[in-house]
Amino acid sequence: MANFSMANYTIGVDLGGTNLRVAAVDEHGLVIERMSLSTQLSLGRDRVIDDMCAGIQRLTQKLAASSKLLGIGIGVPGIIDMAAGTVREAANLPGWAGFPVRAEIERRLRTKIILENDARVATLGEKWLGAGRAVDDMAMLTLGTGVGGGLVLGGKIWYGMNGMAGEFGHFTVEPEGHPCGCGSRGCLEQYASATAVVRMAREVASGGATGVAGISELSSKAVYELAKQGDPDAQRVFAKMGWALGIVLADLVNGLNLPMYVIGGGAESAWDAFAPSMFEELQARSVVYAATNPDGTPTAAGKTIITRAMLGSGAGLLGAARLPVI
Amino acid sequence: MANFSMANYTIGVDLGGTNLRVAAVDEHGLVIERMSLSTQLSLGRDRVIDDMCAGIQRLTQKLAASSKLLGIGIGVPGIIDMAAGTVREAANLPGWAGFPVRAEIERRLRTKIILENDARVATLGEKWLGAGRAVDDMAMLTLGTGVGGGLVLGGKIWYGMNGMAGEFGHFTVEPEGHPCGCGSRGCLEQYASATAVVRMAREVASGGATGVAGISELSSKAVYELAKQGDPDAQRVFAKMGWALGIVLADLVNGLNLPMYVIGGGAESAWDAFAPSMFEELQARSVVYAATNPDGTPTAAGKTIITRAMLGSGAGLLGAARLPVI
Repeated sequence: MANFSMANYTIGVDLGGTNLRVAAVDEHGLVIERMSLSTQLSLGRDRVIDDMCAGIQRLTQKLAASSKLLGIGIGVPGIIDMAAGTVREAANLPGWAGFPVRAEIERRLRTKIILENDARVATLGEKWLGAGRAVDDMAMLTLGTGVGGGLVLGGKIWYGMNGMAGEFGHFTVEPEGHPCGCGSRGCLEQYASATAVVRMAREVASGGATGVAGISELSSKAVYELAKQGDPDAQRVFAKMGWALGIVLADLVNGLNLPMYVIGGGAESAWDAFAPSMFEELQARSVVYAATNPDGTPTAAGKTIITRAMLGSGAGLLGAARLPVI
Repeated sequence: MANFSMANYTIGVDLGGTNLRVAAVDEHGLVIERMSLSTQLSLGRDRVIDDMCAGIQRLTQKLAASSKLLGIGIGVPGIIDMAAGTVREAANLPGWAGFPVRAEIERRLRTKIILENDARVATLGEKWLGAGRAVDDMAMLTLGTGVGGGLVLGGKIWYGMNGMAGEFGHFTVEPEGHPCGCGSRGCLEQYASATAVVRMAREVASGGATGVAGISELSSKAVYELAKQGDPDAQRVFAKMGWALGIVLADLVNGLNLPMYVIGGGAESAWDAFAPSMFEELQARSVVYAATNPDGTPTAAGKTIITRAMLGSGAGLLGAARLPVI
């Protein structure tokens, strides 16, 4: 078959703490093939890289006759050193920090890959095919195990001097607040991640035996279910989450005056529980937001839009697939 | 005289709460002519505009035979609505909010002018001729009556969607802290402006009669002199100022990962009093700063530079003169 009739595609990989997902995506964002595995973190770094490379090869072999591979992008939950191709810090990938991940994967696959932080990859996905399609400038917060962030300026990811921009999860919310893994205290991540929801629920539950205290295996989803059922402790947890998000969104709106801020990640599914206090805080704390949204309805053109992500867990996969062609 | 031999120049105006300064500046940033008046705020808005226009006309007439005027830029202490040419909010210019300033000045001078926020104009000055000359990306904080900010990305001022970006003075430092004129609480401006220094000194002094309590006409300069002499109350005031600046700088470094952050404005002269706690807080709170400055010496290439402004009060005047030619 001649080359001119072949479809172009890229491979996107979303390496999460739970799932390892690989997809072949065409240039319009259509997923041609996909597969999902469990991330075998307990079996060690090399096993995860084995699985990832095997998955990529399975898809590329399947498509080899009909399509042309343009590149491979991989989203990883950690701070990436773009120059070195290493993971600088990765709390959820034990044994990965400092390891030459990119070189190792390229050695096995015998082709170039692009490594990128997972929150930034999700931002890229939402910009390409999701909530941010129509804007050139946006910021995204991903609420997962931690709180990640991504910034798009002039249609492009803003990397910053060392490729480390977008760490909105480490904006200070409470100067003397809960200690953070980063070494600071009171970071947004300590109030707005799924991990934080569970911790805050344990804090409010201490002493009681009903509501959040009555659940043995506490998860952010379980706390959310309780909040929906009207449990005041669980509702307080999400009010605090929204309060923290509102403070950081106010900082971002005041500082950058972007048209759109997108909230994504797994814990975004609790939107209806945390959004009221988030908007209340944002309205009170941002002169810029208040000036552009005097009636508090952030929908019309020219106003600051705060919105939920559209692609769910697909944002990371699609964004990773976008990496090789931007 | 033929046109080709004429030097090009622009007019820059720096409208401050105390001084009204006008300068004719050539394309290399050399000040050809300058004048300084007191800002007669108590005589009303129209009188100030009269004085400003008279000053501009005096300089342009003086230079008319020898030089060619390329444009006029005016820096104003307030949030500017760039589209409307009005001052949206100006706590220090009573009667100016909502007034069609640009149209009124243009009517009197019979030429176009550019109106801009004073902190942003100072940022432009530092970028052009001061601390930011060698970088393409920088943020600036101006510590004056309030705390202003400016952001330069890719060599250009970042305006944001409504021209309101750069309000770093309203980043939240203490969620339940001192009420701010913007409607929020605990904004940076409430800890790091000259106004805040005086207020905080009064707070620590209440009850005593020596040190800051012994000064009848308290100014930020007087508090600084006391701090230099070793007064512990005055030193605590600047430690708090540095603490607040460190928190917001950490947010900016974590979020934007820029190569340079410049501290300017009148209260910047207390640098040696507030800088130690500012750097301490920044080092503790920014993963990105800590990663790029492991030894805490932010000077080498590739590191995050936090530096004093270089042009002093000239930054606003020179930046305003730059407005017409960028």
